[in-house]
Amino acid sequence: MDTPKHFRPDWTERAPTPGTYRAVAKYGDPGQFKHPSDAWVAMMKEEFQLCDSDFRQKQDEGNTPIVLNRPPALEARHVDAMKVLVGEGNVASDDLSRVKYSSGKTAEEIIELRQGIVREVSDLVVHPRDKQDVQKIVAYCDAERIPVTVFSGGSSVNFGLRPMKGGISLVLSTHMNQVLAIDDTNQTARVQPGMFGPAFEAALNHAPERFGSKRRYTCGHFPQSFEYSTVGGWVVTLGSGQASTYYGDVDELVFSQEYVTPTGTFKTLGVPATATGPKINDLMKGSEGAFGILVEVTMRVFRHMPENRRHFSFMYPNWEAAVSASREITQAEFGKPAVFRISDPEETERGLKLYGIPGVADSLLSLRGFRPMQRCICLGTAEGDADYTRLVARKVAAIAKQHGAMSLGAYATRKWAKTRYAEPYMREDLNDYGILIDTLEAGVAWADVHRLHEMVRLFVKSRPNTICMTHASHFYPQGTNLYFIFIAKMKLDEYVPFQTAIIDHIVANGGTLSHHHGVGRMLAPWMESHLGKEQMGVLRAVKRHFDPNNIMNPGGQLGLDEVPPRR
Amino acid sequence: MDTPKHFRPDWTERAPTPGTYRAVAKYGDPGQFKHPSDAWVAMMKEEFQLCDSDFRQKQDEGNTPIVLNRPPALEARHVDAMKVLVGEGNVASDDLSRVKYSSGKTAEEIIELRQGIVREVSDLVVHPRDKQDVQKIVAYCDAERIPVTVFSGGSSVNFGLRPMKGGISLVLSTHMNQVLAIDDTNQTARVQPGMFGPAFEAALNHAPERFGSKRRYTCGHFPQSFEYSTVGGWVVTLGSGQASTYYGDVDELVFSQEYVTPTGTFKTLGVPATATGPKINDLMKGSEGAFGILVEVTMRVFRHMPENRRHFSFMYPNWEAAVSASREITQAEFGKPAVFRISDPEETERGLKLYGIPGVADSLLSLRGFRPMQRCICLGTAEGDADYTRLVARKVAAIAKQHGAMSLGAYATRKWAKTRYAEPYMREDLNDYGILIDTLEAGVAWADVHRLHEMVRLFVKSRPNTICMTHASHFYPQGTNLYFIFIAKMKLDEYVPFQTAIIDHIVANGGTLSHHHGVGRMLAPWMESHLGKEQMGVLRAVKRHFDPNNIMNPGGQLGLDEVPPRR
Repeated sequence: MDTPKHFRPDWTERAPTPGTYRAVAKYGDPGQFKHPSDAWVAMMKEEFQLCDSDFRQKQDEGNTPIVLNRPPALEARHVDAMKVLVGEGNVASDDLSRVKYSSGKTAEEIIELRQGIVREVSDLVVHPRDKQDVQKIVAYCDAERIPVTVFSGGSSVNFGLRPMKGGISLVLSTHMNQVLAIDDTNQTARVQPGMFGPAFEAALNHAPERFGSKRRYTCGHFPQSFEYSTVGGWVVTLGSGQASTYYGDVDELVFSQEYVTPTGTFKTLGVPATATGPKINDLMKGSEGAFGILVEVTMRVFRHMPENRRHFSFMYPNWEAAVSASREITQAEFGKPAVFRISDPEETERGLKLYGIPGVADSLLSLRGFRPMQRCICLGTAEGDADYTRLVARKVAAIAKQHGAMSLGAYATRKWAKTRYAEPYMREDLNDYGILIDTLEAGVAWADVHRLHEMVRLFVKSRPNTICMTHASHFYPQGTNLYFIFIAKMKLDEYVPFQTAIIDHIVANGGTLSHHHGVGRMLAPWMESHLGKEQMGVLRAVKRHFDPNNIMNPGGQLGLDEVPPRR
Repeated sequence: MDTPKHFRPDWTERAPTPGTYRAVAKYGDPGQFKHPSDAWVAMMKEEFQLCDSDFRQKQDEGNTPIVLNRPPALEARHVDAMKVLVGEGNVASDDLSRVKYSSGKTAEEIIELRQGIVREVSDLVVHPRDKQDVQKIVAYCDAERIPVTVFSGGSSVNFGLRPMKGGISLVLSTHMNQVLAIDDTNQTARVQPGMFGPAFEAALNHAPERFGSKRRYTCGHFPQSFEYSTVGGWVVTLGSGQASTYYGDVDELVFSQEYVTPTGTFKTLGVPATATGPKINDLMKGSEGAFGILVEVTMRVFRHMPENRRHFSFMYPNWEAAVSASREITQAEFGKPAVFRISDPEETERGLKLYGIPGVADSLLSLRGFRPMQRCICLGTAEGDADYTRLVARKVAAIAKQHGAMSLGAYATRKWAKTRYAEPYMREDLNDYGILIDTLEAGVAWADVHRLHEMVRLFVKSRPNTICMTHASHFYPQGTNLYFIFIAKMKLDEYVPFQTAIIDHIVANGGTLSHHHGVGRMLAPWMESHLGKEQMGVLRAVKRHFDPNNIMNPGGQLGLDEVPPRR
């Protein structure tokens, strides 16, 4: 190797210049970064057959100002009408606004933005002040046949926010971002859709001070995008948080919802259970803005008892043992861990490197039979009542032991918990040196876990110099999810067909198209073959009912109004 | 009182003569009975101002043979076609078959049957042998515009089985009543819709012997109708079992489903979670045969661990304490009891009489401050892992104590568990002496429980000589259900408007139209005002999509194709 020990890439440590493509493309806080460790750089060099010089010249940084050269196509009278509806200050048509609110965080989107490539954009950005504004906007746009694409947190990874037909980008997070009420008796919080995760959680944690509540609460939903995704976005994309094994996926956290659609505005009943026919409260979850706009949601909340939280971590001798133990844990009926994740051998190894495991610990693990590229790490917590978390932690440990695992204590999980929201920041650094990172994920029944894992890996690893790390992080008695992370030195024109083939392998081997990222336009081409034409027919009938003029997120969202071509 | 101590009504102890109205009207096993205790008779006499002579002459026993005098309206060619499709032995048009498979167990239905009154009946009864038969029948009936009304267990209490437009009654329980497969890895059972509760549970309990499974399982779903309701019926009416607080309502127990509809046949994905848009697997639950016919369902099952079950019972000083404690139990996050029920003061008192509490126990309770018509009984179990059930039972007891309750030990719950499926048999005895018994039930959020309970009671008790017993028996962190039982010496022509007014009071005070009985035609007139026209519009759009010629359970099921008048 030609690497002097002290070489370290010149990672970017400056916030992007406002108004540049990079400013739109960068994840999260403009001033926050997370750089790959030196060990990771070494690993990438070895894996991708790179040398220091590959980490000397940054590429496609996207540091130029956004210039669109595409005048908005919306008639002036519509722009004026919007200004009358929501106030002049809440309407924008400058290039930056149009691009910003037409972009999500899809790998492909980000790389193109860095290259100055902007695909479809909206003509006008509108920031409604309240649900009445949304109602007026939707009525107007329906009458005038103006497409409306909803933007809230902006963290979509499947082109879910791209205004394929132009029109209006409706931004919910600017004003509609408050907790409206907390109900101590029902343990629910009524919240506006554009509220970001940390603000929501803070309001619940401080419910006594802010709402005069009797207790402190937690939302129980902590996706990796937590800091930059919103409550409404969670609901309409069927998100899942890192503690979902205990708290449930977001669809289980919804109590009732209020939607504005071209066909009408309605609020579902606020009841814990009902047998009054098929539940529209369920049908709306995951509708990704294609049926209407979620303007208020009442969420189930939980007592905030961080003092009872227990952290644990284990090393399993291999993937089979980790999966078997996890299945036993979710089926044994002693309660459920909250956070629970197992990493496959490749992720375990690279994770240990990323976090910088000391050589001595590595040797110790190997000595005890936990060998590199076989061993699998498991991280988790237990939450709830103090006696309950003690029981869950004890049972998890006993089952782990039965499956040959070694306890690693609480440290690894605490460290993971501290840095978990920072992972997405690493993408900027990798992209700066032409390295692509992307993820795909699938829900899967226990019986299909190994086949899905093996077949996806077999395909991905058939491409030389490609990292494929997998973990399962959402557990159910009937199965789990697999979350695949791909890293390679690769251009987009190679990646897009590669990704297509991976998706094909996922659905051919028992995985769902998505476990918690949603569908957007990226996965829409697979929807009909995945769900079958009968089920897609139902979804399309519902779409036509709600949105007969096809103004709601038109252009292939969920594959409802048209099927976008595979890219 | 003119009652000699030894007077006891001449309760019927003979199975009804086959072919009579009574044979169709009687609940459950023709040879099984459960008679009111002497104390109950005394109570009814006092409450309804009756004397022995009112219990001497039985009325409307329905002992005459069914004679319909209504020739089937279906053309002979259709009958012949059905015989070709399913075999001659699986088609019937005799009066008994037509009446039997057109009737459920609605209070009104039963009383009318006893009077020899038969409302709408099907023209032909067809017993499909398998799902292929169902597909052929539905295709034929759709092409020929023949109404198809599905019958499975026959326990509907809301006219859900009544063939309003004649046509065919399709009986699923005759042949389509087997467990097809048990998956040990996924912990699921694939089952045909017409399988009755006990057969399903027995197959799961004996999975090792019958299916070579590694474990014994339980279905976790034990509604009061358990013995005479079917798995498919549970799913399409959104049923809930008596252990639902732990196992979940039936909609949570469904893994995947296969439906035959006029628009096509489809099977939902067998995955524990997915983010592929609105879930058709959810939308079909509760569709009550109006979208299509459930022909196979894969249910989540649980490990059968009866050795770990713990029984407990408590007496609370009053309803407020019982409700508060129950809320605390469901929100405190230490796990969940399985069976969990609290009875209001009137039900507690009458229940103690029904089960014959010794006078000495009564005095003891009163002495300790648990006074009649204030005190409330709570019954429950904990199920699951042994350490878990120990924890749950301990926590439940601690919270009960904090709320002033006294433990009554395991006896009351064990006794309840033994006789719980027999309660519906008492209806025959009451009806024999002109006493009407009926139930209505509602899901309700915690914040509305007291209002709902008080307002319904206020109305019901405004009628003199009317028993109204209430319990809550399905618990959620956000609320519970209220189950109202009405008993009165009353004729149908008085009861029907009385029932209508009760339903009005339920929905006006935060209750849902139904918690687990479903809608049928009886509750259909309330659907639009209850859910709102927007949500009903969605359901109707889905109905039109699945069933454009309106052949599936037509005539107001769920209020989809027409709104039946209030009776």
